[in-house]
Amino acid sequence: MTSAGLVGTGLVGGSVGLALRRAGITVRGFDRNPATAARAVELGVVDQAVGSIAEAADDADVVFVAVPVGAIAGAVVEALDAGARVVTDVGSVKTPVVATVESERPELSARYVGGHPMAGSEQDGVDGADADLVVGATWVLTPTDRTDAEAFAMLRSLLGRLGAEVFAITPADHDALVAVVSHVPQLAATTLMDVAAMRGSSHALLLRLAAGGFRDMTRIAAGHPGIWPDICIANRDAIVATLDEYVAALDAVRALVASGDRGGLLEVLERARTARRSLPSGIPVDAALVELRVPIPDEPGALAEVTTLAGTLGVNIADIEIAHSVEGRGGVLVLVIVATDADAFVDALAERGYHPARTPLP
Amino acid sequence: MTSAGLVGTGLVGGSVGLALRRAGITVRGFDRNPATAARAVELGVVDQAVGSIAEAADDADVVFVAVPVGAIAGAVVEALDAGARVVTDVGSVKTPVVATVESERPELSARYVGGHPMAGSEQDGVDGADADLVVGATWVLTPTDRTDAEAFAMLRSLLGRLGAEVFAITPADHDALVAVVSHVPQLAATTLMDVAAMRGSSHALLLRLAAGGFRDMTRIAAGHPGIWPDICIANRDAIVATLDEYVAALDAVRALVASGDRGGLLEVLERARTARRSLPSGIPVDAALVELRVPIPDEPGALAEVTTLAGTLGVNIADIEIAHSVEGRGGVLVLVIVATDADAFVDALAERGYHPARTPLP
Repeated sequence: MTSAGLVGTGLVGGSVGLALRRAGITVRGFDRNPATAARAVELGVVDQAVGSIAEAADDADVVFVAVPVGAIAGAVVEALDAGARVVTDVGSVKTPVVATVESERPELSARYVGGHPMAGSEQDGVDGADADLVVGATWVLTPTDRTDAEAFAMLRSLLGRLGAEVFAITPADHDALVAVVSHVPQLAATTLMDVAAMRGSSHALLLRLAAGGFRDMTRIAAGHPGIWPDICIANRDAIVATLDEYVAALDAVRALVASGDRGGLLEVLERARTARRSLPSGIPVDAALVELRVPIPDEPGALAEVTTLAGTLGVNIADIEIAHSVEGRGGVLVLVIVATDADAFVDALAERGYHPARTPLP
Repeated sequence: MTSAGLVGTGLVGGSVGLALRRAGITVRGFDRNPATAARAVELGVVDQAVGSIAEAADDADVVFVAVPVGAIAGAVVEALDAGARVVTDVGSVKTPVVATVESERPELSARYVGGHPMAGSEQDGVDGADADLVVGATWVLTPTDRTDAEAFAMLRSLLGRLGAEVFAITPADHDALVAVVSHVPQLAATTLMDVAAMRGSSHALLLRLAAGGFRDMTRIAAGHPGIWPDICIANRDAIVATLDEYVAALDAVRALVASGDRGGLLEVLERARTARRSLPSGIPVDAALVELRVPIPDEPGALAEVTTLAGTLGVNIADIEIAHSVEGRGGVLVLVIVATDADAFVDALAERGYHPARTPLP
């Protein structure tokens, strides 16, 4: 792993570029806006700016596509066609992108792994790029039945080297989850800010009264709006379903208020408080680890099944390696995970017919 | 102004106690929980703990009532009965409290001014008390037709000395505004957290995926839930109306997503972004000030009309004084406000038949 291509050198792409270079990897960058590309060189985000996706991808060990959602699939296909060994992206919606790449390049798509770093920032543009945005970030990968195990393992390793915590889940699960933790919160904050802003005569005072809680809650509404219409439309079904769920829950709370149901209100408040306080803040650096060796058949889908099962259970795969069986049939997935997650994961694997072997790591 | 009474020595009451003592005022505190009162003495929140509201209020220049919403009116009445010169409170809902005090003590209520510091904190309890919570906080007062001008001016001055920015508005306007900037945001964050927490199988991963935006947006859901049922029920009408408005706005956004209306989505996002970015962050310390002298008739209601007009326009009254006319009929309200607010305020006063005179302050 010595060379990477970067397509799109904005905030997220730029941060990935800085992280890659910090890890000693040479980065060729393309941005369709030449001024952005020039600025990326100036800021040290890329070693070199090139004039096309193909030039960025040619002979690259890995290509990161960091462009708006609507443009991702096209850029991924170009990068695959140009011969990049592994291609990934950083888009907020995965199902339509993965489906398009797999249908347009049924063979080459084995070397594409959808990705999404959950690293937000209100700032947009390459000047906000920061290698540390990647460190400790939860980074989702969405392998499918077609994903090549080596390509996945290589990308997984690289992201670990950059400092990210990687979880694999299916594209559809990803999209349903981000609707809940990202897209609908964005729309809810935007709408709340809008309702406040539309209050007529007392508007000026209202904005002055907005204390810390309101400011926290509407902070994401201050972000760059340009990316959101495409995201909303790409993830339309999951967003609409989650908005419906949210509105139904708000209606239930309204009924509790209207009927003066103190006990009912307290129950919702307590439940939400407990959930909010239990938001994990990352894996403790000194967590005990175990190695799981999972024999897998030599057929497509086993990698995706095992890794996305881990992801769905919230098990962070700290490292992954594929050991091929000498007999040539099948192989062994070697996974490193946090020890406290091992029981649940081993049970779930056993339920699905796998026979994992567990070894504590020193 | 040398002595104050404090009824309730929790987070907000405790912070007021610390701020009063820092300003050289002696504070007698009462808390119905003797352990809290003892802790308040230990932390230097009060000079002395006393055994009843009457003891805290007896001969006090001012009494701050900082108890849960449902208990405020009763405590205010006790403090007025005990002879406190001015009584105020720090409750989040004003209309029912003011109405109860005015109906139970039609005469004494002239010396009660409803109040609400918009100083939030997730922490609860006296150990979180901090005099600096008051500094720079937006502090709403809700004088009415019955409010004594001297009592109001004294309280306004004291709060200014403690470092708060004071706005006066009517109790009803206050309640409508806090529904928008505090109560509904609390319920919206709680409900969003609850919707996320109820997602079944992928729950663990979902909570891991929750990035900065989601964390910001749900932060207030981590606060102490105990106070909210009473607040919701005390401000039921305004909250229900605002929730209805919020749900209608969410439905409109849902329709934009469902129909793939990029332009419509962008419009809402841009509008909210502009509003969020224009949230004021307090009066610049070096703002030019002007003095307005407003002759007022000697009849109830003029003080409330002038000060709440200022509040509604977002005009912070930096200082206020009542100069009585030597002829004994009417007087002059002397207000100090920020110069850039003066034009709009003077016009609005003139529309209502007042004749303010303006003098720039050095």
